Amino acid sequence: MKTTNVSDHFHEECGVFGIYGHPEAANLAYLGLYALQHRGQESAGICSTDGERLHCRKDMGLVAEIFTESVLSELRGANAIGHTRYSTAGQSARLNAQPFLVECSKGQIAVAHNGNLTNAIDIRRDLEMSGSIFQANSDTEVIVHLIARSQEDNLEHALRESLLRMEGAYSLAVLSKEGLIVARDPYGFRPMAFGQIEHNGHTAYVFASETCAFDLIGATYIDDVQPGEMITITDSGELHRKRFAPVQDRHHCVFEHVYFARPDSVVFGRSVQKSRELLGRLLAREAPVEADIVVPLPDSGVDAAIGYAAESGLPYRMGLIRNHYVGRTFIEPKQSIRDFGVKLKLNPVRGVIEGKRVILVDDSLVRGTTSQKIVRIVRQAGAKEVHLRISCPPTISPCYYGVDTPDKNELIAANHSIDRIRDHTEADSLAYLSLEGLKQAVQDVQGEYCYACYTGQYPTDLVGIEQLLADSREKK
Amino acid sequence: MKTTNVSDHFHEECGVFGIYGHPEAANLAYLGLYALQHRGQESAGICSTDGERLHCRKDMGLVAEIFTESVLSELRGANAIGHTRYSTAGQSARLNAQPFLVECSKGQIAVAHNGNLTNAIDIRRDLEMSGSIFQANSDTEVIVHLIARSQEDNLEHALRESLLRMEGAYSLAVLSKEGLIVARDPYGFRPMAFGQIEHNGHTAYVFASETCAFDLIGATYIDDVQPGEMITITDSGELHRKRFAPVQDRHHCVFEHVYFARPDSVVFGRSVQKSRELLGRLLAREAPVEADIVVPLPDSGVDAAIGYAAESGLPYRMGLIRNHYVGRTFIEPKQSIRDFGVKLKLNPVRGVIEGKRVILVDDSLVRGTTSQKIVRIVRQAGAKEVHLRISCPPTISPCYYGVDTPDKNELIAANHSIDRIRDHTEADSLAYLSLEGLKQAVQDVQGEYCYACYTGQYPTDLVGIEQLLADSREKK
Amino acid sequence: MKTTNVSDHFHEECGVFGIYGHPEAANLAYLGLYALQHRGQESAGICSTDGERLHCRKDMGLVAEIFTESVLSELRGANAIGHTRYSTAGQSARLNAQPFLVECSKGQIAVAHNGNLTNAIDIRRDLEMSGSIFQANSDTEVIVHLIARSQEDNLEHALRESLLRMEGAYSLAVLSKEGLIVARDPYGFRPMAFGQIEHNGHTAYVFASETCAFDLIGATYIDDVQPGEMITITDSGELHRKRFAPVQDRHHCVFEHVYFARPDSVVFGRSVQKSRELLGRLLAREAPVEADIVVPLPDSGVDAAIGYAAESGLPYRMGLIRNHYVGRTFIEPKQSIRDFGVKLKLNPVRGVIEGKRVILVDDSLVRGTTSQKIVRIVRQAGAKEVHLRISCPPTISPCYYGVDTPDKNELIAANHSIDRIRDHTEADSLAYLSLEGLKQAVQDVQGEYCYACYTGQYPTDLVGIEQLLADSREKK
Amino acid sequence: MKTTNVSDHFHEECGVFGIYGHPEAANLAYLGLYALQHRGQESAGICSTDGERLHCRKDMGLVAEIFTESVLSELRGANAIGHTRYSTAGQSARLNAQPFLVECSKGQIAVAHNGNLTNAIDIRRDLEMSGSIFQANSDTEVIVHLIARSQEDNLEHALRESLLRMEGAYSLAVLSKEGLIVARDPYGFRPMAFGQIEHNGHTAYVFASETCAFDLIGATYIDDVQPGEMITITDSGELHRKRFAPVQDRHHCVFEHVYFARPDSVVFGRSVQKSRELLGRLLAREAPVEADIVVPLPDSGVDAAIGYAAESGLPYRMGLIRNHYVGRTFIEPKQSIRDFGVKLKLNPVRGVIEGKRVILVDDSLVRGTTSQKIVRIVRQAGAKEVHLRISCPPTISPCYYGVDTPDKNELIAANHSIDRIRDHTEADSLAYLSLEGLKQAVQDVQGEYCYACYTGQYPTDLVGIEQLLADSREKK
Repeated sequence: MKTTNVSDHFHEECGVFGIYGHPEAANLAYLGLYALQHRGQESAGICSTDGERLHCRKDMGLVAEIFTESVLSELRGANAIGHTRYSTAGQSARLNAQPFLVECSKGQIAVAHNGNLTNAIDIRRDLEMSGSIFQANSDTEVIVHLIARSQEDNLEHALRESLLRMEGAYSLAVLSKEGLIVARDPYGFRPMAFGQIEHNGHTAYVFASETCAFDLIGATYIDDVQPGEMITITDSGELHRKRFAPVQDRHHCVFEHVYFARPDSVVFGRSVQKSRELLGRLLAREAPVEADIVVPLPDSGVDAAIGYAAESGLPYRMGLIRNHYVGRTFIEPKQSIRDFGVKLKLNPVRGVIEGKRVILVDDSLVRGTTSQKIVRIVRQAGAKEVHLRISCPPTISPCYYGVDTPDKNELIAANHSIDRIRDHTEADSLAYLSLEGLKQAVQDVQGEYCYACYTGQYPTDLVGIEQLLADSREKK
Repeated sequence: MKTTNVSDHFHEECGVFGIYGHPEAANLAYLGLYALQHRGQESAGICSTDGERLHCRKDMGLVAEIFTESVLSELRGANAIGHTRYSTAGQSARLNAQPFLVECSKGQIAVAHNGNLTNAIDIRRDLEMSGSIFQANSDTEVIVHLIARSQEDNLEHALRESLLRMEGAYSLAVLSKEGLIVARDPYGFRPMAFGQIEHNGHTAYVFASETCAFDLIGATYIDDVQPGEMITITDSGELHRKRFAPVQDRHHCVFEHVYFARPDSVVFGRSVQKSRELLGRLLAREAPVEADIVVPLPDSGVDAAIGYAAESGLPYRMGLIRNHYVGRTFIEPKQSIRDFGVKLKLNPVRGVIEGKRVILVDDSLVRGTTSQKIVRIVRQAGAKEVHLRISCPPTISPCYYGVDTPDKNELIAANHSIDRIRDHTEADSLAYLSLEGLKQAVQDVQGEYCYACYTGQYPTDLVGIEQLLADSREKK
Repeated sequence: MKTTNVSDHFHEECGVFGIYGHPEAANLAYLGLYALQHRGQESAGICSTDGERLHCRKDMGLVAEIFTESVLSELRGANAIGHTRYSTAGQSARLNAQPFLVECSKGQIAVAHNGNLTNAIDIRRDLEMSGSIFQANSDTEVIVHLIARSQEDNLEHALRESLLRMEGAYSLAVLSKEGLIVARDPYGFRPMAFGQIEHNGHTAYVFASETCAFDLIGATYIDDVQPGEMITITDSGELHRKRFAPVQDRHHCVFEHVYFARPDSVVFGRSVQKSRELLGRLLAREAPVEADIVVPLPDSGVDAAIGYAAESGLPYRMGLIRNHYVGRTFIEPKQSIRDFGVKLKLNPVRGVIEGKRVILVDDSLVRGTTSQKIVRIVRQAGAKEVHLRISCPPTISPCYYGVDTPDKNELIAANHSIDRIRDHTEADSLAYLSLEGLKQAVQDVQGEYCYACYTGQYPTDLVGIEQLLADSREKK
Repeated sequence: MKTTNVSDHFHEECGVFGIYGHPEAANLAYLGLYALQHRGQESAGICSTDGERLHCRKDMGLVAEIFTESVLSELRGANAIGHTRYSTAGQSARLNAQPFLVECSKGQIAVAHNGNLTNAIDIRRDLEMSGSIFQANSDTEVIVHLIARSQEDNLEHALRESLLRMEGAYSLAVLSKEGLIVARDPYGFRPMAFGQIEHNGHTAYVFASETCAFDLIGATYIDDVQPGEMITITDSGELHRKRFAPVQDRHHCVFEHVYFARPDSVVFGRSVQKSRELLGRLLAREAPVEADIVVPLPDSGVDAAIGYAAESGLPYRMGLIRNHYVGRTFIEPKQSIRDFGVKLKLNPVRGVIEGKRVILVDDSLVRGTTSQKIVRIVRQAGAKEVHLRISCPPTISPCYYGVDTPDKNELIAANHSIDRIRDHTEADSLAYLSLEGLKQAVQDVQGEYCYACYTGQYPTDLVGIEQLLADSREKK
């Protein structure tokens, strides 16, 4: 159940939500977080304000479990931010739940954050040296300290000063009694969409990591929060959009389109579903194979498999069924069941697979262990051949911008040739989409995406971070 | 959230599991129930025996929540039965959880049951008159009373005598210190499969409502428990198959293939997935329409939609995304969000749908309310046309054989023409599969299926049951 | 934590409450049970009726934990019965929680019961032979079966017929849609008081195991339900008192006065506190000793110690402090702490004890193990001498009338002389109250109490019960 | 249920525990906290260290509920501190649970604290202005910030520097990977005892707010941590005792002896039980009255009542019974029961009280409301006269040193004459112990106690605190 990796401490994926000027701010934040639940299932929280003080509730668990009617009724006020978090297990999980609410020189402020600061360890070390205390181990606490330490006398200026010290990836929402501020790093690593809800002749502003959160609450998508942009809504309800940093090359995380975002979202201005289908189509063109059916790994491989099938002219079939009634842990029988872990989630459909040459389409192949088990159970269900097709290039480098990835030495493609990987997975053939194919699928004509996990070329300076991470691993 | 219907009291769908002669009987029962979770999510239970006494644990909730390591460790012994149950809310839900364990003239016996006795009310009335007490309101309690009352001196004979008094649908497993007995009604309404696991040179016998439970635990499907058959495994480990009732016409529940069973199961000897794909193909032949894409209602409409697309040559697309992080209840905003209930589960993908003529494929249309909302949100996402295709005939009659269906007056097709239903759903066109198509899809060449919910022609005598149910409704 | 004894199955102490004709019946039942909580802390339940049907809620835990506002609000109606139960641990505990609610030939009936039937095993065997099923192992289920089986056509007659088959101890309340019936065995083993509450010009009737329940809800104690009496309140609100059995010698359980009942209750028409003080005074007269202070074992030894001190003229001092923040279980240190179990509950006050000759007054000495530990910690706190005084005679026989007692072979006084017991406890002297003293303390001038646990002379025929219990122990 | 008072934010009573050099540090901390549970029942926590890092667990609830075997097993190491806390309700309660664990320039440090800093608001304001962030509202967070900010390079020096900035009352334990430091304010307001446990030839050091914690774990009381003293145990296991502040007049909180501490504890070097008995004796001398019996308010009035009875020669009787099965909240009947709140906890014993002239002995009379209800129920139980005797002087001023007291305007004795209070309570007579009596009872010959709550004369400078508190109340 446990994975040991660099992201044990500072890197994780999250969903962020913000709303300003709606009488049911907390209720809508709750629904928004429910739509963003796929971005983090370990903890969730909402912080609201009625202009008098901030009200906060966060806990371990799913959004639908944490927020009961009585909990929501205490989150008073027309403005709110929310957060869902994927986190590593352990004692600190509860402390790292967000939004992070403190009282400081800028009054009460709450921060919800998605991303990973590449210089967080440095800043934290400096802050500790000058007397700051840390209760958790998230980047968010670092951000709040910077704001609190700022000599600027208002929150907006203090935040801007803080952002300018931060390197790496962040999309964040800051709530105070006076208003709401949303900001996104100059490279635009992580998404953050901006929308509106009309109600009784008023306009409420909403922000969310993905547009699927807008759909549920009836909000209209207006624009992305731009890279390097800060949007401030003051207590008079006025909205200001300002740049806080010079224009930079953009580096949108391509993995949002490959895997992470919901297919019904528009991310970085592009429909995720369109990207995924195209990934499959291009994969079919690049790596065709004679076969009888195309089978997705549900649910994440579905769209690419549909694309692959459409492009290849081969039938698309649901040859693997996913069990959705998943609990947190499972008790394994003592007398081991072969490929037990995979079987808990996936079961092959013999009627579909038997006697067929099967193309299995998946969106990633990280360590290779799971793929091997899936190939096996498909073959046991009677497949004559099993051809594995991955709708992105080989993953060879860890991410330092907010995606939880294993260490390089656990990434099979970083250490082995495609032939070796094929052998390991026991597939009859294996092919990945090319980097060019990936660029084309997300229509990255202007080079605005980050492909570091596929290329090892990081768009920002990471001097020191690898050494620091290595140190911290040793100390553990 | 609440549906009021005749099944409030005696009718529900369930999953049954049994295992004999395996050192990890309870663990495997737990996994089997996990695979059968879709047949009932309200309560679950396992009863095991070590030959000394019976050990039982049942509770409200999902299998993965109820059975922790310490709970399973107390369910000692090599033989076990298990049950998952869908049940209506209320104070009695806990009491109705199964297996039902009692002490009586036949010693300790536990019963897990799927189905609905059509003469349960009659028998219960007789039993009460002659001094029996009832703590719950399930058919299972009736069965146990019959066994306890039997003058036969061994359990097998007592069970046979009891079964002969029971009318309607049942697939049941009975556990005692001495052994395991599994039986199925003479019509074969509800499924029950029979399999084996080899371990350390021994053979363990397993039984399950669907074969997907066998796949997870590495068991091999041998046969169905035949209609009118009783399989007994005695404490010496011998297995006997006997008929307890004369051969009858078979009446397998066709709805298992239409909707209820998992597509990766073999039910009534036929792959469910094959039936579903064929349902879609035949629907495409019977009710073609000029359109651009075929979109399923996930997850249940997926296989029929794939079939429809394949047959029609139209592209299959995931135009609706399902949110799987569903809690038990949701807090609705005060200021109502249009079509809120549907949106919590389904979100249209504008990139897929916009400007398109969409064929929506679903497996049922019961009250019509939900379909109307879905048509609406698809149209709001930019669909030019919305054509609704249902992969079965109009549902016009309630089921009395173990499926929880609403009253006839709530079944829209029982009360309105297809034109009126189309108008109500606001679809551009609406078509159902014909009864002939349905028969062909499940390959029912010998008339072995029950179609009562589509035809109103019930295969067994229901004298009195409707009056009784009507009375019980009035009394409430 | 576990004690193995004959009462594992059929014997336990309980608290019973009933109320008829009050708009807040369930609320008052809840408060009544809270006052009776000392009679059973494992499970509790309330069953109410609004004349339409019976509503029931029971669970494991304390009254204050189980009954929330929302739970109570569902227990509608003006009539209710309630129960608190002390029970042995295990899987069956939940099933044995009361009131016991069933549907049978007499309609819905609920029973709450305190006591122990000495012929329950016999009756149960007969019932099973004639086809009854048992889900739990309490006498209450037996009672309900008898009622259900009765050929009498109304509940009152059926209950009377059933009571006449029952031998042993019982005080019970039976609720139906039509009314409330309360009955007590002909010997009057267990207590049951009868009272009234005036509200808005109406009179509500209340019943409780002890009068302390009346005090909390503002009811007035009228009388005891007489031994062999049945009090029936019909749906018209009329109350009838009738004998259902001929007059017998009375055998009130003296242990209620010695230990079990709350000191602020009136039990069997006599103030418990007065009995307890007199127990101490008579003990002082019978077994004086030269000493400096009298110290009670809190809380149960307090009243007798006050009596002892008053009579002897020695100072009464709180030399032992009890910790009331007791959880269900405690984690013991691996490196054992001497007398850990006793220390968790009791701590000596060195300032009081040091250098003193201490008389320790306790109300019972069952196995002797605990007494030994207490003598030790008192001596370690500096006592020069420790004299143990027990405010009742030596316990030499188990109770078969509803008190949970260990087997005879675990009763130290059944197997050893007082000298040996004194040696075992390491006290400087040990004395028990005489049987005569006990009789005088409860003012039993007419021989109306049961002293079987002190004399071994059981007031009713127990033919067979000991053999049966021995059998049942072997089978376990 | 709610009381609004100045202590909503910074003032509460707590229990502190520390242990160094024992292989079962966390287990013993758990037992120590259980013994200190009376000092705070809202939350509890333990922080341990194995020299590698600090492990912490804290939660809302009682010690016995929070610390299961698996929780304790994760609290590894030979050194630990623990805390129990009484806190006001509200969202912040969880955040204020202690020990407070942070990472800062001094490494990981955890602090458990009992007391109240009178300049906490000032310091916090300064800290916020220079960039510190606050997540909770306890003084402990202020202390940690001071340590983190200190320029001193080791923890001991940093702590000393911090303590010198703190004014008011504190007894605290600080744990780091390297060792344990315990300190007490120069006035010695709050207690802190120092003891030892021998195990396998080694000596472990223990610290606790009260010696009753030592008794449970078999530790020997050595001395008090002296006012103005810091005891440091380094990782080599050496123990150093040093003064960190000049000698001051002592001001031990007399209320510990009057009410707060457990009677079996030695506090400020004196047996609490002895003080309490003497309080009662002196009260009997100062305020005798002709009566029949002396009745305590259980449990806190017991010792003083025993003293009063002994001195006056009147019989001591348990005329009021306390129900210990108290839940967090209780559902009141709609149709109100007179004096319901008091009755839930206390029930008079009519057999004891009826026809008697009763002296009721209690240890405090704060608002007067409860006393009135008690006088009433005693009179209703038949008392001919009710004489109220309070075993301390009238409480006229709030405490600023760590005891949770209401505002001055809620203190009945601050606003009314004793005659008026007597009238309000409806007692036949009312008397308090004199200040001189109180001093004599605790044997304060050298003026080493704080009596501020009885005199309004505060031993330290409180400039500004009242204004600040008033401001904070207005802002709420």
